[in-house]
Amino acid sequence: MRVVVVGGDAAGATAASTVKRRHPDWEVVVFEKGPWTSYAACGFPYVLGGLIDPWEKLVARSAEQHRKNGLDARVETEVTAIDLDARKVQYRDHARGEDGEEPFDRLVYATGAGEARPPIPGLEHGHFLQTPGQARALGEALATAKHAVVVGGGYIGLEMAESLRRRDIETVLIDAASQVMLTLDADMAALVQTALGDTGVEVRLDTALGSIEPSGDRFAVKTASGDLVTDAVVLAMGSKPRSALAKASGLPLGDTGAVKVDHRMATPIEGIYAAGDCAEVWHLVKEQWVNIHLGTVANKTGRIAGMNVGGEEALFPGAIGTAVSKICRYEVARTGITEREAATLGRKVKTAMIKSLTRAHYYPDAGPIHVKLVADADSGVILGGQIVGTEGAAKRIDVVATAITKRMTATELVDLDLSYAPPYSPVWDPVQVAARQL
Amino acid sequence: MRVVVVGGDAAGATAASTVKRRHPDWEVVVFEKGPWTSYAACGFPYVLGGLIDPWEKLVARSAEQHRKNGLDARVETEVTAIDLDARKVQYRDHARGEDGEEPFDRLVYATGAGEARPPIPGLEHGHFLQTPGQARALGEALATAKHAVVVGGGYIGLEMAESLRRRDIETVLIDAASQVMLTLDADMAALVQTALGDTGVEVRLDTALGSIEPSGDRFAVKTASGDLVTDAVVLAMGSKPRSALAKASGLPLGDTGAVKVDHRMATPIEGIYAAGDCAEVWHLVKEQWVNIHLGTVANKTGRIAGMNVGGEEALFPGAIGTAVSKICRYEVARTGITEREAATLGRKVKTAMIKSLTRAHYYPDAGPIHVKLVADADSGVILGGQIVGTEGAAKRIDVVATAITKRMTATELVDLDLSYAPPYSPVWDPVQVAARQL
Repeated sequence: MRVVVVGGDAAGATAASTVKRRHPDWEVVVFEKGPWTSYAACGFPYVLGGLIDPWEKLVARSAEQHRKNGLDARVETEVTAIDLDARKVQYRDHARGEDGEEPFDRLVYATGAGEARPPIPGLEHGHFLQTPGQARALGEALATAKHAVVVGGGYIGLEMAESLRRRDIETVLIDAASQVMLTLDADMAALVQTALGDTGVEVRLDTALGSIEPSGDRFAVKTASGDLVTDAVVLAMGSKPRSALAKASGLPLGDTGAVKVDHRMATPIEGIYAAGDCAEVWHLVKEQWVNIHLGTVANKTGRIAGMNVGGEEALFPGAIGTAVSKICRYEVARTGITEREAATLGRKVKTAMIKSLTRAHYYPDAGPIHVKLVADADSGVILGGQIVGTEGAAKRIDVVATAITKRMTATELVDLDLSYAPPYSPVWDPVQVAARQL
Repeated sequence: MRVVVVGGDAAGATAASTVKRRHPDWEVVVFEKGPWTSYAACGFPYVLGGLIDPWEKLVARSAEQHRKNGLDARVETEVTAIDLDARKVQYRDHARGEDGEEPFDRLVYATGAGEARPPIPGLEHGHFLQTPGQARALGEALATAKHAVVVGGGYIGLEMAESLRRRDIETVLIDAASQVMLTLDADMAALVQTALGDTGVEVRLDTALGSIEPSGDRFAVKTASGDLVTDAVVLAMGSKPRSALAKASGLPLGDTGAVKVDHRMATPIEGIYAAGDCAEVWHLVKEQWVNIHLGTVANKTGRIAGMNVGGEEALFPGAIGTAVSKICRYEVARTGITEREAATLGRKVKTAMIKSLTRAHYYPDAGPIHVKLVADADSGVILGGQIVGTEGAAKRIDVVATAITKRMTATELVDLDLSYAPPYSPVWDPVQVAARQL
């Protein structure tokens, strides 16, 4: 049996390894168009902030290591076409400048996500942050920068703004929306924005990017709230699934623009699977197919795809968008749906937002923690949670994520036997305080 | 309506406050034999280690504050008899040296737990650590101590040994068992013991305490593995429910020696409730009535008792013994049943024990985390979990606790959408790595 995997990062490498571990005699070929396999794009802001050095630390498993494990891993080799009928792919080896073909019995499509590129003049003067190459180029631009503009207030934009401040670069963050972190409700996002401002980042909301133009050695950034001249522009405007090759090859896409799959991560075409940022997943709360760009989901769906390619019957039940980030003094976490998303979905909810402490009130370094819970108005079933707080706050979101997955009510959450010790928690965990208020 | 609450710490004060909040016009009398209400006994080791100062910080709500909230809170006043037929209690006011009677319509028995006192000669020369008075007396003894012996390797003994080392007191910890922390399996406990040893504590296992005798200004401690001469002996040999008054009054006790209750925290006697360390609770995994001494359970059962006293119909589903402690460089957590408990209960289980990292491998200060999971051998349902690891490790136990409560299988745990960011977790949460191995 010959398996071709298109894409060698989180989902692709996981799928390939999962197949190979079960079938050491199968031939598994992994094509990765970039120079690295299995790397942690989520680590880019930390390298650029000087926390992690060198870049290569971000590589969890190199192509060389994958080859030692029996995978035929080919980096800098891009799949340019997939022939679903003839069951072969065409590729271009960028290092050697050669083209070739590779037949397959089963294929996993795992091309990930790339930057969203809205039609704004001069984006080529800014720096996206999706690939190792882009991240390195930004690193070079920052070497001499004294001032930078970050476009986009999602978690990558915020992490980058914080990293720039760590290097003492004057930083302005702009976002077209009226709040940072649209994955949170406005009340919770305001806390994050305050923390960011306290590190010296100037945040300008309701400020769309107009254009970027060279201006001598620097760049002129036109925005809805005035013009800026800066040394570097970081473009963190979101990402979108890399599904163009799939579409061109005849693989059906879903409404989200990502590759259509079922719970087996199988496309409607026999023997063809998709996983990771380029594929859809079922949202357990929204009860619809969505497209999520997170390493956790990519690894999990890659594993499920690999198991099914290998002949098992594995189902991925779904995701709920659990995410956490470190933003300045806060840990910021969310799961399920927000109050705003509930309104969009037409769901009647009740919410509770509380402030508590990360530790017992008398224990050193107890810090603030804010918890917001969203529950179904009638049944009390928990539908979403958001947490903003100091050290130790964020991983609490996992309890909420587990509760949502098992459709627990606020009352059940209050009764849960959660852990307590003065260094880690008040005797009523803040999550339970919020549930009690609900 | 007149409600009497016997005991003014976690369970009692919570029950009383819960009633009063719902019925401001009811008379709620709280008797506390000690000087403090609502204090955090779990903070004693930290005060004695010099981390927290002064003692009074441990008081979450003083008698004065309770009185402001409308409770008739009487400290240093001990209930000496409960007349279930005549519906009144007799008490002794130790401060004034007066006796009195108080009638009640409904009563909550919440006397907590006291030290276990095995029949060992000379215990009066050592220091127990259950009440503020005992803790203060130990504090005075330690002021000039250069050497101390801690008897008992449970979490309080370990926390105390660590606190003594923080004050540079030479410390020997002895325990009659062949491992520290019997709430963990031996393999996990060995990790904790190593960490303790690394701080300079000498640990002697299989070492029962024989006797304590004065020896000049110091004390001679006879043990199964030789004699020690020391300046102070800390007795952390466990606790038992304070149920003598209940028994003398005719309240039925369960097999554990604690007060018998149902899921409403009601005793078999109409209108009489019990909560906290002195009462039994249902163990959701063992499926039997147990007696747990933890502030979390005390607060929760106190709240349920208060709700039922106030006329609501609230049920406490049960506990699973979730606990966490900070022991030297490790966070140590457990929930559900251990492999050893499973064997005792005759349950066929499979286990997995893995070592991972608390953060992404490339992120600064990533530390080791060991996770052990215990699951039903046939169904794969998770029955217990143990975690030993550095910073950020412990609160992960709450996900396992939630999973156990909802009877999740290892497979469901693997699929859970848990949070990830480089500063907080590898992309596969260590709990899920263990579940995958199961």
